[in-house]
Amino acid sequence: MCCAPAIWKAAVAAQRLGEFERIARFFAPLAAPGALGLRDDVALIDGPNDQQYVLTADAIVEGVHFLGDDPPAQVAQKLLRVNLSDLAAKGAVPVGYLLVTALPRGRDEAWLEAFAAGLAADQATYAIALLGGDSTATDGPATLSITALGRVAAGRAVLRSGARPGDLVYVSGTLGDAALGLQALRGELRGIDAGAQAFLADRYRLPQPRLALGQRLVGTARAMMDISDGLVGDLGHIADLSGVGGVIEAARLPLSPAARAAIVADPLRLAAALSGGDDYELLFTAPAEAGAALAALAGELGVALSMIGRIEAGSGVKVVDEKGAALAVPVAGYRHF
Amino acid sequence: MCCAPAIWKAAVAAQRLGEFERIARFFAPLAAPGALGLRDDVALIDGPNDQQYVLTADAIVEGVHFLGDDPPAQVAQKLLRVNLSDLAAKGAVPVGYLLVTALPRGRDEAWLEAFAAGLAADQATYAIALLGGDSTATDGPATLSITALGRVAAGRAVLRSGARPGDLVYVSGTLGDAALGLQALRGELRGIDAGAQAFLADRYRLPQPRLALGQRLVGTARAMMDISDGLVGDLGHIADLSGVGGVIEAARLPLSPAARAAIVADPLRLAAALSGGDDYELLFTAPAEAGAALAALAGELGVALSMIGRIEAGSGVKVVDEKGAALAVPVAGYRHF
Repeated sequence: MCCAPAIWKAAVAAQRLGEFERIARFFAPLAAPGALGLRDDVALIDGPNDQQYVLTADAIVEGVHFLGDDPPAQVAQKLLRVNLSDLAAKGAVPVGYLLVTALPRGRDEAWLEAFAAGLAADQATYAIALLGGDSTATDGPATLSITALGRVAAGRAVLRSGARPGDLVYVSGTLGDAALGLQALRGELRGIDAGAQAFLADRYRLPQPRLALGQRLVGTARAMMDISDGLVGDLGHIADLSGVGGVIEAARLPLSPAARAAIVADPLRLAAALSGGDDYELLFTAPAEAGAALAALAGELGVALSMIGRIEAGSGVKVVDEKGAALAVPVAGYRHF
Repeated sequence: MCCAPAIWKAAVAAQRLGEFERIARFFAPLAAPGALGLRDDVALIDGPNDQQYVLTADAIVEGVHFLGDDPPAQVAQKLLRVNLSDLAAKGAVPVGYLLVTALPRGRDEAWLEAFAAGLAADQATYAIALLGGDSTATDGPATLSITALGRVAAGRAVLRSGARPGDLVYVSGTLGDAALGLQALRGELRGIDAGAQAFLADRYRLPQPRLALGQRLVGTARAMMDISDGLVGDLGHIADLSGVGGVIEAARLPLSPAARAAIVADPLRLAAALSGGDDYELLFTAPAEAGAALAALAGELGVALSMIGRIEAGSGVKVVDEKGAALAVPVAGYRHF
């Protein structure tokens, strides 16, 4: 996960790192072979007909990832979509999901009805259906999780570990919208017109999982993930798992008109595009010779694909300006512990 | 789910019914074909080599299903085992699980370490491994869930819907121990010696999923589930889904020496065996001619199998005494909403 409101504090990022360390220390030793060391956000198990199932789970907590007065349909859709985004990032086709809800005792039926209606709408949009789950009561905030299953041809899931020196780095769509949208919702995005604020807020509220794109990138992308914790950190995961380094050219970051207006008004907001979470765009690497095919695919699907950097030998991720000089990157993250 | 401390109040049972109604009303319309209408606690999806995967999910909440000062290893094991019990009840072999944790921010590493150690021990015992999951923080009580996967030969999973008039009704092990154990832990089980109290408390704390038994019952049992909400209510599920009625002979209920002592001291405690949850024994029906094979299997596995009643045409479940006269059954359940 995921769903991290972007907060620009190094101290907070250090605590977020604490989560990865905890997983590595306590849970990675428990991992099955198909769990990819718990480092790819998905597991792979054998399916029928030379297919594999891709399994992923994501949870959201009221007060942390959504607010008690958020429309329940939207809460349901965000929960489902952050899971679908993980499937998209492996090139998988959705199969089904299990839903676990722990709801405050007083939660009324109107809320549940709207929540279910949100799921129904997205089930139709994304061709996925409910397989099961559990519902229980809690004295605390609503806690909701989904385990989603997709399918992909055996051995063809696009992992985080496949990037090679010489690959180019691409992202879909535009970056930073969700982090700026959260600022807009908090009333912190001064100097931007209402239409732009509404656009950004929508991008925060309802991610668009890039399922069709992800599926079409199988065989072309060498490494892929969705951007949920921020571009720099997420490319760092690809770099770490692939044993390579990454370079991001800041001037190439694809920005929506609304995000561009926000950043022109305050250049420090570029941090949202570099380090803000929640965009749920696809981040992938591909060999340079795939450029023409990717341009054609972008046109066919009507999804922007932007080359934003490259993979090199080495380690870590650096961000450079037009002249190739390294930029200091504001750190973002969200404290989970 | 599951894990319901037995409370003898009809009003509470009505609210528990509310949970089933909510699932039927809001979530069953979302169910995939393999979800069995969300009424079997599992879903089935195609696997490789003429196998199917059995999927199940169960959640536990601090303060509802476990206490904050319960040993973390035991919390982990109960969480995993209630899921394994659902796999056992379909005759499935464990494959893997995904773990979702929402933990209070202050939860220390010693707790996590012990929690992971509990999982590690049970992974070795039950030949299952971690496939993935998610971890997040919460301002409320710890909320933990597992989605478990098992495998079974295609079409051979033992569903709740297969009982036929003339079948006999069987249970494994002994009944009522867990509900009496919860009473013991609450200091409500007066007049029973400390050894018996400790035995019963252990039965509440750590269920023993009947995996080997469940697997061996494939092809013999016609309908099966685990007892998590209480014998009468759970046989009611089998009766409903099979379109039949069930009769339980109270005198045949298998009781541990500790439970027997508790019931002798207060006969009202028989309710624990009829309606108490959390025993996680297997409840199944089988044709009368399977009796000899079941006796042999019980001997081979060292697990008691007791014939406690029969399936008839009709609907509902009745409990009868030695003379066949209907007994009033104390209702148990647990309020989830």
